[in-house]
Amino acid sequence: MNNQQLFENIRKKGSFLCVGLDTDIKKIPAFLLDTTDPMFAFNKEIIDATAKYTVAYKPNLAFYESEGLEGWRSLEKTVHYIRETHPDIFLIADAKRGDIGNTSSMYARAFFEKLNFDAVTVAPYMGEDSVKPFLNYEGKWVVLLALTSNKGAFDFQYLADNSGEMLFEKVIRTSQNWGTAENMMYVVGATKVEELSDIRRLAPHHFLLVPGVGAQGGSLKEVAKFGMNQHCGLLVNSSRAIIYASSGLDFATKAGESAKETRDEMSELLRNKGLIS
Amino acid sequence: MNNQQLFENIRKKGSFLCVGLDTDIKKIPAFLLDTTDPMFAFNKEIIDATAKYTVAYKPNLAFYESEGLEGWRSLEKTVHYIRETHPDIFLIADAKRGDIGNTSSMYARAFFEKLNFDAVTVAPYMGEDSVKPFLNYEGKWVVLLALTSNKGAFDFQYLADNSGEMLFEKVIRTSQNWGTAENMMYVVGATKVEELSDIRRLAPHHFLLVPGVGAQGGSLKEVAKFGMNQHCGLLVNSSRAIIYASSGLDFATKAGESAKETRDEMSELLRNKGLIS
Repeated sequence: MNNQQLFENIRKKGSFLCVGLDTDIKKIPAFLLDTTDPMFAFNKEIIDATAKYTVAYKPNLAFYESEGLEGWRSLEKTVHYIRETHPDIFLIADAKRGDIGNTSSMYARAFFEKLNFDAVTVAPYMGEDSVKPFLNYEGKWVVLLALTSNKGAFDFQYLADNSGEMLFEKVIRTSQNWGTAENMMYVVGATKVEELSDIRRLAPHHFLLVPGVGAQGGSLKEVAKFGMNQHCGLLVNSSRAIIYASSGLDFATKAGESAKETRDEMSELLRNKGLIS
Repeated sequence: MNNQQLFENIRKKGSFLCVGLDTDIKKIPAFLLDTTDPMFAFNKEIIDATAKYTVAYKPNLAFYESEGLEGWRSLEKTVHYIRETHPDIFLIADAKRGDIGNTSSMYARAFFEKLNFDAVTVAPYMGEDSVKPFLNYEGKWVVLLALTSNKGAFDFQYLADNSGEMLFEKVIRTSQNWGTAENMMYVVGATKVEELSDIRRLAPHHFLLVPGVGAQGGSLKEVAKFGMNQHCGLLVNSSRAIIYASSGLDFATKAGESAKETRDEMSELLRNKGLIS
């Protein structure tokens, strides 16, 4: 999927929502545990209930790996299900990978060939040759960590050199020699709204994947104010606030309602910006 | 396994070798492809041939994930096989993980509970709360990326602040507030020998996991000269130079010979340091 197609989907749905499939076997409704594949059963219902309000899904690999082989199988089924039922959805493997070149090539194979994701989140610590193998796939994307939403972001990401440039800025600037706004996005936490204008100046055309709205406390309105560009340029992720909106029999209905609420808010923000009518 | 036990194994075997199980389905001997689980069949023979010369194995997760469900199964079988046949081996998941706290907890569960690894490699970019969940397991280890062996290491890891402290130094200094020499090691590439003395000053007691000897060109003698401490403090990894020593019927024998050669060289270095007699 290219930049333009993604923007078209955003306009069509009036939404730049990404639903994070952080599917925790210990948090899903208990009655699902009797099914043969509880994680997939949960995901399927969540997808059916939320797909019309969202342009992207982002399975978080850790949650599947924590269940070993069974979890990996649930992940594969989830990816296939989304591909079959909603081919227009942008599919992000939230995997935070990154290793020396020949190893990153293997991760790229895992997520782009074996699993047919559109994008994978990548950690920048190991530099260019750890990121480039993911960029060798036509129509596929790297979502590079820049400024994350957690407290630990302050440990290293704000480290400034003599010129005052901070690590997350250097990551954004340097990585633009590796890829373009057509195959690279950046992770910028919604809890870091004060830096969003700065990041928009550094990367005016790139999509930003913004986690941290909802359970982590970021504000959607603020994110749109400082981060939205003329082709939207935002994918705002919400995980727990949507998928765990209820733990009862109505979990899917409630997830759908929560997604719809967010979509409605997003539509208004897109309208205010003149991107939809 | 604790620091002291690891050192005892090193003394017993006269080796601080870690064999990297970067098992690539496209590189293993063709005749193995007829077996039901070629990756495991390859690993099993490599393990049988090299275990007496090595104190650690390090499966590289990317290579297993690139084969999807089948690869994950091969990994599980490999871990179980090592645990059953060689309980004294230190087992490292080379996974380069790291995410917000609740997600890192899931990765910790994946590698320490589901798979019973002793250690997992972690990327430091997201800071303290992305690393700490891995440190909550008694007897388990984080191997934190500090200075990696690849070209891309120069992109960000040498970024220096006003005081002249570089990112990799800051990572080593800061992370010592999170863990100790009993549950944390650092990755330092063998291609970065000139920085090893500096790193030893910053972390005199920690084990260092050193990749890049062999195929990547690092020198074992240099690594020992600048990196070895009074309880050895080194695990030197070799992957391709050992496991792909031959692509013929004799692949395991040749891998064993290559591991033995490295062990012999290591024994001499340990003897010179007075750590074995």
